[in-house]
Amino acid sequence: MSNSAQWLGFTAAALTTSSFFPQALKTLRTNETAGISLRMYLLFTSGVSAWAVYGFWVQDWPVFWANVVTLLPAAAVLERKVRASLRSAGDRQRQGKDR
Amino acid sequence: MSNSAQWLGFTAAALTTSSFFPQALKTLRTNETAGISLRMYLLFTSGVSAWAVYGFWVQDWPVFWANVVTLLPAAAVLERKVRASLRSAGDRQRQGKDR
Repeated sequence: MSNSAQWLGFTAAALTTSSFFPQALKTLRTNETAGISLRMYLLFTSGVSAWAVYGFWVQDWPVFWANVVTLLPAAAVLERKVRASLRSAGDRQRQGKDR
Repeated sequence: MSNSAQWLGFTAAALTTSSFFPQALKTLRTNETAGISLRMYLLFTSGVSAWAVYGFWVQDWPVFWANVVTLLPAAAVLERKVRASLRSAGDRQRQGKDR
């Protein structure tokens, strides 16, 4: 692989990987998850894990590292969203009992 | 590249790529963008574009296709978030003038 290609790969990795940190910080700070898709974060964290294994397997280090690092903020957002979804499911159930 | 590795790459691609569609559908349907990070979607769409060029360059087709397809829903979410941010910036400016 040429040096320029590897440099572009690492730039791409830096952009997509760093992008999840402002989202995770926002979600952890505001706990505002109404606009966040639970399905997206379930699929995404599974996919990022699979990409990491793939990158390791074919020894594509930009792909490997980008996905290992992305897993952290993605899992943080997923955790908050799952919590909020469970809470609102509980609320709905309680409301149902009241009626 | 072995067939199993390529299969894993395409599985990973299917997961992370498909993940942005439920988010885009949710955002387009509800217009609920308060919990969405503008900075995330700016960095992310730039990064996904860079990954597509990288994948093409090193002829890593799972990386190329995953990112070309991801660009669509990511750009849709970004567009809605940019619109909402411009609108609320306009609102703040008008409120400032009223005082």
